[in-house]
Amino acid sequence: MSVIGILGGGQLARMLALAGAPLGARFRVLDSAADACAGDVAPLLHADFTDTEALERFAAQVDVATFDFENVPATSAEWLATRLPVFPAPAALAVTQDRLAEKQVFAKLGIGTPAFAPVGSRDELDAAVAAIGLPAILKTRRLGYDGKGQIRLRTRDDLDAAWEQLGRAALILEAFVPFESEISVIAVRARDGEFRIWPLTRNWHSDGILSASLAPWPSGSLDEQARAHARAVAEHLDYVGVFALELFVCNGTLLANEMAPRVHNSGHWTIEGAACSQFENHVRAVLGLPLGSTAARGVAAMLNWVGTMPDRATALLAEDVHWHDYGKSPRVGRKLGHATICASSTAQLAGRVGDLAQRLGREAQCAPLLTALREQPHL
Amino acid sequence: MSVIGILGGGQLARMLALAGAPLGARFRVLDSAADACAGDVAPLLHADFTDTEALERFAAQVDVATFDFENVPATSAEWLATRLPVFPAPAALAVTQDRLAEKQVFAKLGIGTPAFAPVGSRDELDAAVAAIGLPAILKTRRLGYDGKGQIRLRTRDDLDAAWEQLGRAALILEAFVPFESEISVIAVRARDGEFRIWPLTRNWHSDGILSASLAPWPSGSLDEQARAHARAVAEHLDYVGVFALELFVCNGTLLANEMAPRVHNSGHWTIEGAACSQFENHVRAVLGLPLGSTAARGVAAMLNWVGTMPDRATALLAEDVHWHDYGKSPRVGRKLGHATICASSTAQLAGRVGDLAQRLGREAQCAPLLTALREQPHL
Repeated sequence: MSVIGILGGGQLARMLALAGAPLGARFRVLDSAADACAGDVAPLLHADFTDTEALERFAAQVDVATFDFENVPATSAEWLATRLPVFPAPAALAVTQDRLAEKQVFAKLGIGTPAFAPVGSRDELDAAVAAIGLPAILKTRRLGYDGKGQIRLRTRDDLDAAWEQLGRAALILEAFVPFESEISVIAVRARDGEFRIWPLTRNWHSDGILSASLAPWPSGSLDEQARAHARAVAEHLDYVGVFALELFVCNGTLLANEMAPRVHNSGHWTIEGAACSQFENHVRAVLGLPLGSTAARGVAAMLNWVGTMPDRATALLAEDVHWHDYGKSPRVGRKLGHATICASSTAQLAGRVGDLAQRLGREAQCAPLLTALREQPHL
Repeated sequence: MSVIGILGGGQLARMLALAGAPLGARFRVLDSAADACAGDVAPLLHADFTDTEALERFAAQVDVATFDFENVPATSAEWLATRLPVFPAPAALAVTQDRLAEKQVFAKLGIGTPAFAPVGSRDELDAAVAAIGLPAILKTRRLGYDGKGQIRLRTRDDLDAAWEQLGRAALILEAFVPFESEISVIAVRARDGEFRIWPLTRNWHSDGILSASLAPWPSGSLDEQARAHARAVAEHLDYVGVFALELFVCNGTLLANEMAPRVHNSGHWTIEGAACSQFENHVRAVLGLPLGSTAARGVAAMLNWVGTMPDRATALLAEDVHWHDYGKSPRVGRKLGHATICASSTAQLAGRVGDLAQRLGREAQCAPLLTALREQPHL
């Protein structure tokens, strides 16, 4: 019976442990927060990721290690990898920790991206703006997620303040893309190179945080393009496990925004909406097992609960709603849970999401999703 | 955030905890075995069920209690019920702990059963055999499960040995029923009286232990009869939570065999095969939440792994196989895990089960199920 160690003990680790238990896997979680929510379902080792003594104890308890977030210090991941198998490999993790390195990989593989330029000084910022134009987005190369560490530049007047705020870190300037939609491809690669993707997901963000997802999102010829992009990245990095590639649909083509080297919020719908979920397939990949089917079961919508949880008993009165409360204490901007709504057709899904939105007073959150469902009745 | 205490820490408690975590519930498990397998996913209190001091500590940690097996001493359940809400109520549990009381409830509610008679002495055994005829089955009234505590009587020559073996306990003699099939109805009743059943399940046993299940099993007009029987029992007992009613199909009618006051092995297929599983709905009922949809998603077959686990990696090469390893050490006759195979049609299901059976060398176990699938192509 293998024991899987997870660095990071948030909701992703929690859902990995819940999905992996039926496979017979046991879990240990390492997190710097004593109340990390994965601790409800697996033993938690409370320590800093750089605490070598704690890492030593952790390594002694587990057979293989993985991550629930990408900002684990590369040195900790590398240290662990000298002791036991670590998936994805620290080298793959390192690329995705640096927005510039990541974009350079995309470019090298012929995957379109928004125009970008590294920014190491105030002068380089001016040069980058001159080259890329405005509006653009200034981002820290490292440690960004959920819209953190990034500022949108509308005019040249915004540059000083943005530099003041972010300039102490290494930066990247990216062109602002007037996208038609944001989609993600959730992919998994096994130890033996087997590669699968789930059907594409369309996503909506609010304040930089994922708000809602809809899948499968049929993008016609873009499906094959998305699959080819994800496969190219996975093979280039010799990646093992699940990852997400976030893409913009822009003038009928795909531009890669970023890659998350882990199970991803936009793949939560796969728990109930696919034959095998992103969480189970990540565990299968890490354990060297055959991958499960990524086929969708009907259509699914995912709604994120950020900052406050809606009333559970009210939500569960709606039809085919699957509730996910991560057991975290409420805080502004914190992901506390999500719900997945399943249906056998888009019309049925629209009805169910509309009903749930009304019961919970979440009409605004659901509006873009409902509009998309109405505009894509063929889904 | 409610904490649910479960008396008994086997695979049923384990699957309850896995299903309840997404609802935001936390779990504590009490079991007399230090290695009870639910301990992998929830804190385990290792103590005897009659240890009042341990029960006191348990009660202090939980908001509501339930069971993962029916033979918890009634006095322990009653003691707990003086401290906190317990579902199902100890009175309902007590009825199902006694095969005679259970059969008398069925009879009172107009639910057909095999002929039965209480047996308290050697003379009463003779009288019961004279009244009921042979073959018949002599069973202990209490503490029987998975074929334990029962002996089939073929001729009068079997009586002495059977009495020798079982006569120290209170007994019941039941007519042997030449049934056409064994089915079960898994039902759930909420605190507010809401009642639902999952589609009927057909079951096959081997050496008294469930070997395979198939659902939905369409029994035509018997569906309504099964539903009415389950509802009558639930309302009579003011039952809260999930239970299983095992029935024989005999000459086109239903005879009640027994009731299990808990989630049940023949309902394991609902994890992947129904919109809301028996485990989630039991947790919902215990927490006083609205019940989830019991509708089937396609068709499903469940295979039990008893005594030895087949090779996991081999099994997962088959299509749409959902693996459940309970993390228990192997022992003859012990339920170690199960697999559920899902499909969108019976023909597809037959193909998938046949493929899995061949990969695992489990053709004999799957034969009755495959025969039934071939004979019921309209399923």
